[in-house]
Amino acid sequence: MLIVMEAGARPEQIEAVVRHIEKMGLKAHPIPGAQRTAIGVTGRQGMKDPGFVENFPGVKEVIHVSHSYKLVSREAKPDDSVISVGGVDVGGTGVVVVGGPCAVESIDQTRRIAESIKLGGGQLFRGGAYKPRTSPYSFQGLGEQGLEILARVREEFDLPIVTEAIDEPTLKLVEQYADCIQIGARNMQNFSLLKTAGRSRKPVLLKRGMSATLEELLLSAEYIMSEGNYNVILCERGVRTFSDHTRNTVDLSIVPAIKRISHLPILVDPSHGTGKRNKVLPMSRASIAVGADGVLVEVHHKPEEALSDGPQAILPATFAQLVREVDAIAQVLGRTLQPALATS
Amino acid sequence: MLIVMEAGARPEQIEAVVRHIEKMGLKAHPIPGAQRTAIGVTGRQGMKDPGFVENFPGVKEVIHVSHSYKLVSREAKPDDSVISVGGVDVGGTGVVVVGGPCAVESIDQTRRIAESIKLGGGQLFRGGAYKPRTSPYSFQGLGEQGLEILARVREEFDLPIVTEAIDEPTLKLVEQYADCIQIGARNMQNFSLLKTAGRSRKPVLLKRGMSATLEELLLSAEYIMSEGNYNVILCERGVRTFSDHTRNTVDLSIVPAIKRISHLPILVDPSHGTGKRNKVLPMSRASIAVGADGVLVEVHHKPEEALSDGPQAILPATFAQLVREVDAIAQVLGRTLQPALATS
Amino acid sequence: MLIVMEAGARPEQIEAVVRHIEKMGLKAHPIPGAQRTAIGVTGRQGMKDPGFVENFPGVKEVIHVSHSYKLVSREAKPDDSVISVGGVDVGGTGVVVVGGPCAVESIDQTRRIAESIKLGGGQLFRGGAYKPRTSPYSFQGLGEQGLEILARVREEFDLPIVTEAIDEPTLKLVEQYADCIQIGARNMQNFSLLKTAGRSRKPVLLKRGMSATLEELLLSAEYIMSEGNYNVILCERGVRTFSDHTRNTVDLSIVPAIKRISHLPILVDPSHGTGKRNKVLPMSRASIAVGADGVLVEVHHKPEEALSDGPQAILPATFAQLVREVDAIAQVLGRTLQPALATS
Amino acid sequence: MLIVMEAGARPEQIEAVVRHIEKMGLKAHPIPGAQRTAIGVTGRQGMKDPGFVENFPGVKEVIHVSHSYKLVSREAKPDDSVISVGGVDVGGTGVVVVGGPCAVESIDQTRRIAESIKLGGGQLFRGGAYKPRTSPYSFQGLGEQGLEILARVREEFDLPIVTEAIDEPTLKLVEQYADCIQIGARNMQNFSLLKTAGRSRKPVLLKRGMSATLEELLLSAEYIMSEGNYNVILCERGVRTFSDHTRNTVDLSIVPAIKRISHLPILVDPSHGTGKRNKVLPMSRASIAVGADGVLVEVHHKPEEALSDGPQAILPATFAQLVREVDAIAQVLGRTLQPALATS
Repeated sequence: MLIVMEAGARPEQIEAVVRHIEKMGLKAHPIPGAQRTAIGVTGRQGMKDPGFVENFPGVKEVIHVSHSYKLVSREAKPDDSVISVGGVDVGGTGVVVVGGPCAVESIDQTRRIAESIKLGGGQLFRGGAYKPRTSPYSFQGLGEQGLEILARVREEFDLPIVTEAIDEPTLKLVEQYADCIQIGARNMQNFSLLKTAGRSRKPVLLKRGMSATLEELLLSAEYIMSEGNYNVILCERGVRTFSDHTRNTVDLSIVPAIKRISHLPILVDPSHGTGKRNKVLPMSRASIAVGADGVLVEVHHKPEEALSDGPQAILPATFAQLVREVDAIAQVLGRTLQPALATS
Repeated sequence: MLIVMEAGARPEQIEAVVRHIEKMGLKAHPIPGAQRTAIGVTGRQGMKDPGFVENFPGVKEVIHVSHSYKLVSREAKPDDSVISVGGVDVGGTGVVVVGGPCAVESIDQTRRIAESIKLGGGQLFRGGAYKPRTSPYSFQGLGEQGLEILARVREEFDLPIVTEAIDEPTLKLVEQYADCIQIGARNMQNFSLLKTAGRSRKPVLLKRGMSATLEELLLSAEYIMSEGNYNVILCERGVRTFSDHTRNTVDLSIVPAIKRISHLPILVDPSHGTGKRNKVLPMSRASIAVGADGVLVEVHHKPEEALSDGPQAILPATFAQLVREVDAIAQVLGRTLQPALATS
Repeated sequence: MLIVMEAGARPEQIEAVVRHIEKMGLKAHPIPGAQRTAIGVTGRQGMKDPGFVENFPGVKEVIHVSHSYKLVSREAKPDDSVISVGGVDVGGTGVVVVGGPCAVESIDQTRRIAESIKLGGGQLFRGGAYKPRTSPYSFQGLGEQGLEILARVREEFDLPIVTEAIDEPTLKLVEQYADCIQIGARNMQNFSLLKTAGRSRKPVLLKRGMSATLEELLLSAEYIMSEGNYNVILCERGVRTFSDHTRNTVDLSIVPAIKRISHLPILVDPSHGTGKRNKVLPMSRASIAVGADGVLVEVHHKPEEALSDGPQAILPATFAQLVREVDAIAQVLGRTLQPALATS
Repeated sequence: MLIVMEAGARPEQIEAVVRHIEKMGLKAHPIPGAQRTAIGVTGRQGMKDPGFVENFPGVKEVIHVSHSYKLVSREAKPDDSVISVGGVDVGGTGVVVVGGPCAVESIDQTRRIAESIKLGGGQLFRGGAYKPRTSPYSFQGLGEQGLEILARVREEFDLPIVTEAIDEPTLKLVEQYADCIQIGARNMQNFSLLKTAGRSRKPVLLKRGMSATLEELLLSAEYIMSEGNYNVILCERGVRTFSDHTRNTVDLSIVPAIKRISHLPILVDPSHGTGKRNKVLPMSRASIAVGADGVLVEVHHKPEEALSDGPQAILPATFAQLVREVDAIAQVLGRTLQPALATS
């Protein structure tokens, strides 16, 4: 922490701040400057927040320096984490494409889309059985029946499953049926759910909240890891801004920023990120080009009949093209498309 | 819904859109214009999303018109809702001041602050027993012991209690001990929690999410009401923007905007809204001046020792001044400070 | 400036940073901590930016501490500036209401509105002769003819005039005709225009840009002051955010934030800030309640025929009510409505 | 325009709106729906804004449908515009890399960087002679002397020049010396400057404002084109959001969005977009992958001594790598790096 004093701060005001810091068991390092004094604070901060000195007379500003994430950090683990999702590695040199419908609607719809994901070259299958919807009157998902459909599709097509849990009871079920538990953007700071996910043995795909900073995303991952589950995959899915030509603004620069700080893999979801079908292919290419470990896209064979998010789903033919282009771009970066599981 | 065709859209493209809309059981009303054709869509939209036509050739844009909130709307209930929190009315002509610490830390701390809230003229007491914290290593609240402290303080000072629930189990406990269940900003779209709150008999204070639109806030309230609990109080607590001189940007104009559309009462929380002690008093005055039904502020007798959010807590003396100024401003609007419960 | 080293930074990396800082003529103060070392930097920064050390190996983060505004600061001038606009004081204990149409459309329209401003109790008159419009096909103002109309209206009603200049030639004209030169939000960082305004003798009303931080607003004021014109009035007019129920989001907490740091007066413009007629009255009350030195509102006697921004203009009767309510709220804060000029 | 009436709107209220619209010379098309009536408005809107009906009783919302851009639109010109900058084509199937220092500092510095741009494979040279700086105390550029240096460098290395004009007088000079006039983000809505640029014969590089929507960017381009200069190149350079890990948030999805609507070429500037040297290479790759017509990057041979924006400048070696990677990615999209001018 750094405390910046006002230009006209009196010596006794500086002294009062120093004394307060030291009373908290921390160390204060006054740095007199040409115009004003700054006070560096070191030592392990306990439960009390030294930020309070902001209200002391003569204090201009308090700047927080240290970050509270530990386990997610490259300082804790320098090498990239590679996380196995049902046998498919996420992270490392490989790149993955996760495809599937927004929501599982029926066995027939799910099988048809899964087939096109497999044929198109995708390695993982996504589809929601529990849908967090803004309106209580929208389709909320098939529930456990949806999970059963997903499990059948995995057997048939050898596609490991990523699906969302929205509360503790559904997390217990998702854990049984799926290969990777998705925590959605709206639950990124549902700390009870994060802790429950942290006690699971299944990998967790954690989506960035709609207005979460990089630090908050990492701290939410830290919640999961601090409970013992180290298999966390991050996912950028667009943030809320004033910009209105897409549903959200995809913040691709978070990918190299995360890579510098953390060892965790990161995917990008351009379907929710843009909310527009015609932006999914170009933004998928850009995601791989910026260094993401894969993309997560919505695919529907009849998007005009989808029960949710039809306008952003791409067709199976576009999906196959997407996999090819993503592969070609990965190779420019010296990476390759992760092999899919062999059909058993 | 309104579908805007491109200037050069061909008649058969317009026809294809009209046919698609009608196949969905809706009615299409083409409106030929000077430059382009628009197509109005009416009828009760079912589960399928007609927004998909955005991807049809010749379509420029799809504009959604109708809102899915019903019960929260003045169209459903023209008169202001007045909600009793442990005997204190929220909404109507009265204005309330809710005060208390960010977190319940001990019986002693809580009693001292409660006493100053009562003496200072506050009508309701707030304090967290369950704290949603960005970092897993921060103080997370005293839990049920905190609720017991709050209940004792209510008995002693006749101050009804508002406190946060962070998941289903804690909601069950909060319901037993408190007079009003708070759903925090991070849980505004935790739909499972909203539904559980909707099955409670206790009033719910619903805080706006950090990047929630007015419509999303109302739809989250609709989740609670659609389960049968009509006692919902909204709360603006600042949104995330680029503006960095306060922790969040308080969006006061949502107050008159909500009042136009909804019958629900709305409070403002300038403590979380600004994150700065010295902004709480002026923003409380502004909140009442803009038409809010009250404010929710953090008070601590020793903010420098607070276990959370010390920098934004005001002192008891400032709280008393705040109540006086809020009262004076309420009177300019023909309102009055709600009477506190008589000490039994 | 504070340089934060990574936890694992090696002594020679720290040394390299220190040497680089000192080579620039600055002083480096290493502060070893429990986990990592931070390096405080002091001394007068010249033209070279020491921020570059961010790219040195072992450096985690560079935090800028000092601000470059000087003349706008309370550190330079502790007392509130009071600025005379054609004889009406802005700042100090008085509060002003500036009213008028968005655009000057005709002598008749301007006279009728000016009469209602005077009768309603406003002290200053606003109206645009040069309109910066998003589209080149929108009405761009009457130009110098509009300035002549404003000058006639001032004579008739004894209302000093605030009007916008959009480039150097129009600033020269505005300076001749008006009492206060407005620099609009879109030109807040048009530094050539700011410098030209700084060489004028007339007071300048500087509006906050749509995505300007507090610091950028103050630095734009600093541009004007550093050229010798100390008569700057700031104005909050809403910022761009995701929030879509109003055209912009009025950031009222900037008012007390500015008051802490700067001696300059600050007004609020709730007409542009909200873009909605029905929000102007409540947001005007809130502006005064938060501590602004006045409000700037758009008034039109026939808003449905206004050539620009009709939806946000209030009627003369609402204006009179606004002045009364603003006055009542000012009194709660121990302030009074500034007296209008006596009609000569 | 579409006017949405409230659910309970009375027939005479609907009638009043229709009459008002028709009095303005427009046509009203009432569309009765299950819950409420909507009114489509067609006809050529004149100077009066029909948006005012928002304030009529019974009106819930007014939705603007038509856009006011014309010349920038693909409806006006279906084929991609290809714009020659000193003999190098921008737009079409080629991709360009524009490199150079943030500011021209000396002939020596400029020559050395230009040499590395040429050797590294860049086609165009950038460098500021007039720098719009947030603080009046920062280095403001060498002025005309800087333009002379740029002109010499062009002769020596056959690199056409892109450089910024900040007001009318500097635009006249830039026009004489350079091959392309840059209008910076802060001046995107400096409409006087846009009109002046519109009367120039030189191509204009128009940067998106920090909080400009897609529509506003296109309308600013329309300002230039409506004065007769059709050679406009757009440029995304990051927007202001809450996200704090980069200086701005690069909104790459605007590239395919612009391509759908407009025939104008668009570049991306990842240097200003991220403000971080280590993000420039990955974001350049992503820019080409998403479909941009090129990138604009800051290069410095001694970034630690740069007079401005040193932390975001890349080294010559990184620039050469960037050109190679951008080329490889362009080829995945069936594009090629535009050939540089042959050295004369």
